[in-house]
Amino acid sequence: MARIYERVALIGLGLIASSMAHAMRRGGLAGEIVGTARSVETREIASEIGFCDRVVDSATEAVQGADLVVLAMPIGAMEPVALEIGPHLAKGATITDVGSVKRAVVEAVGPHLPDHVDFIPGHPLAGTEHSGPRSGFAELFENRFTILVPDENANTEAVARLTRLWEGMGAKVETMEVDHHDLVLAVTSHTPHLIAYTMVGVADDLRRVTDSEVIKYSAAGFRDFTRIAASDPTMWRDVFLNNKEATLEILGRFTEELFALQRAIRTGDGDHLFDYFTHTRAIRRGIIEAGQDTDAPDFGRIGKKS
Amino acid sequence: MARIYERVALIGLGLIASSMAHAMRRGGLAGEIVGTARSVETREIASEIGFCDRVVDSATEAVQGADLVVLAMPIGAMEPVALEIGPHLAKGATITDVGSVKRAVVEAVGPHLPDHVDFIPGHPLAGTEHSGPRSGFAELFENRFTILVPDENANTEAVARLTRLWEGMGAKVETMEVDHHDLVLAVTSHTPHLIAYTMVGVADDLRRVTDSEVIKYSAAGFRDFTRIAASDPTMWRDVFLNNKEATLEILGRFTEELFALQRAIRTGDGDHLFDYFTHTRAIRRGIIEAGQDTDAPDFGRIGKKS
Ligand SMILES: NC(=O)c1ccc[n+]([C@@H]2O[C@H](COP(=O)([O-])OP(=O)(O)OC[C@H]3O[C@@H](n4cnc5c(N)ncnc54)[C@H](OP(=O)(O)O)[C@@H]3O)[C@@H](O)[C@H]2O)c1
Ligand SMILES: NC(=O)c1ccc[n+]([C@@H]2O[C@H](COP(=O)([O-])OP(=O)(O)OC[C@H]3O[C@@H](n4cnc5c(N)ncnc54)[C@H](OP(=O)(O)O)[C@@H]3O)[C@@H](O)[C@H]2O)c1
Repeated sequence: MARIYERVALIGLGLIASSMAHAMRRGGLAGEIVGTARSVETREIASEIGFCDRVVDSATEAVQGADLVVLAMPIGAMEPVALEIGPHLAKGATITDVGSVKRAVVEAVGPHLPDHVDFIPGHPLAGTEHSGPRSGFAELFENRFTILVPDENANTEAVARLTRLWEGMGAKVETMEVDHHDLVLAVTSHTPHLIAYTMVGVADDLRRVTDSEVIKYSAAGFRDFTRIAASDPTMWRDVFLNNKEATLEILGRFTEELFALQRAIRTGDGDHLFDYFTHTRAIRRGIIEAGQDTDAPDFGRIGKKS
Repeated sequence: MARIYERVALIGLGLIASSMAHAMRRGGLAGEIVGTARSVETREIASEIGFCDRVVDSATEAVQGADLVVLAMPIGAMEPVALEIGPHLAKGATITDVGSVKRAVVEAVGPHLPDHVDFIPGHPLAGTEHSGPRSGFAELFENRFTILVPDENANTEAVARLTRLWEGMGAKVETMEVDHHDLVLAVTSHTPHLIAYTMVGVADDLRRVTDSEVIKYSAAGFRDFTRIAASDPTMWRDVFLNNKEATLEILGRFTEELFALQRAIRTGDGDHLFDYFTHTRAIRRGIIEAGQDTDAPDFGRIGKKS
């Protein structure tokens, strides 16, 4: 595959950045990959694994001469980094990010970038519950969507180039309006995660059912809830703090519907339950017909390691 | 493997019963397998597939001379069947069931059985979202728990024999007190299912996010929710109507915790979110350490077909 960028700077070297590095390497998509992370420890591990050509000590150093800069850290950490690197970005460089929320990133990062760069926020819909530089693998993005949210004045050539990079890493690329992204993700990812966290918390809280019983019988529906509830706390804290409005809206609707079902259980209204469950079945059928699922559920993961 | 029962009667020929038949066949565990179901259609399909030695037209006929009778239909259908078969049960026969709730089955079925049989209610913690006579397969119970809830006066020899049958079908067998079963399952299975149904209903309800978007981006956490929400509506209606108390209790706790998280999002209390998510992570670790999970999440399924 052809080289798409001459020098890619990865700021943050966790699951997403290290997977990008592995995938870019595999495809020969980048001339040079330069990486940096907050802690000495992470930088040392990254050097040891060797998925970057160079690991440097600061974001400022990393972005020198880079034609692509990727912000791959928790959303709450992006504003200070944008402030720091803004003055050092090369003319014509593309700046992107991989944060799970987009409106907040646009507002936190955009104002600190100079006019001579193209800012094209993005979000790969791929992840595992693992994190850190050791958790990455080249196949993470394969057949998964990456959503780009360029604004209406975006440089179409820069968008096309970034699209080619993601496609080179195996992803299917879509563009979307920023707020719509946040709403769609609130429905398909953020609220389901919050609910899974909550359910796991409830189980733990219940003294009459022992932890070992919860664990032992977790295969009966509960297990994948615990899997999502094992995801990185910092990342998810930042997701909810930064997609507040959409998450609260979906949670409000969720609570309404849950109360209606709860009432049906209490009053013994079997017809309501039956109709509701029949209705939701159709959505599942839609997913299978759309070819988005097989019988191997994976909560958004593929070909994962360990 | 040795034959454990001479004649097994399966009343109901859906996912669970057909899987039992395949598994008993594989292990040579039953001398003869006789089956019946409510509809002519299901009986014809079962005859055609041939997982029973005989398919008969009524429950009364099926239980003739059987030393094991298995009630394998939705919980709400069990009482009339117990009434029907009660007078026709052979002396010394064991009667069991596979219903997902146990207190309600004990109360619905127990009173209609004669004193000369042993009633040992059971529940295999194994299933898929498919149903009907074509959905069964011999491996369904492998390495999954089956919980038996014999009462304190139960014939220990009969319990031991039924345990051997389940073990012969690949299951790990545990005994438990009836109400405790219902509480444990409310936590690990029933409430998670209700929540998944609700979340899928919310997504469908939301006009600003199209169905195709929900489907397209469902891999991002939502997909396994739709899978559980595709389970049989009759079965799940009966589960909630019959495990009302425990489900409502767990739902009450769930709502409390969810409101606390919702408030933390609204007020921007990142510490609360971070601490909560850190705490739930530990449970996941417990499950992995207990060897109850690998990296292949399956929401309670194994080796499924199609
Ligand atoms: N994980 C997923 O499932 C997933 C999926 C899609 C999108 N995302 C998004 O991707 C981003 C990164 O997630 P991840 O899973 O890759 O996280 P991760 O594995 O936890 O790694 C985060 C990285 O960011 C670094 N970092 C944190 N603060 C920093 C700072 N101020 N300056 C420089 N580096 C800093 C960390 O460095 P240290 O190790 O030194 O602390 C670490 O290398 C998040 O915005 C998340 O929303 C995640
Ligand atoms: N599926 C799971 O994941 C799972 C897991 C553990 C336990 N269970 C329990 O297992 C039981 C059966 O579930 P399943 O998944 O096997 O259901 P299924 O595939 O839907 O099959 C139910 C069977 O019951 C028959 N039936 C219904 N009413 C009847 C009646 N009045 N007399 C005789 N037969 C009748 C049906 O006959 P027709 O086809 O003719 O209607 C059908 O053969 C339920 O109590 C459920 O709670 C299910």
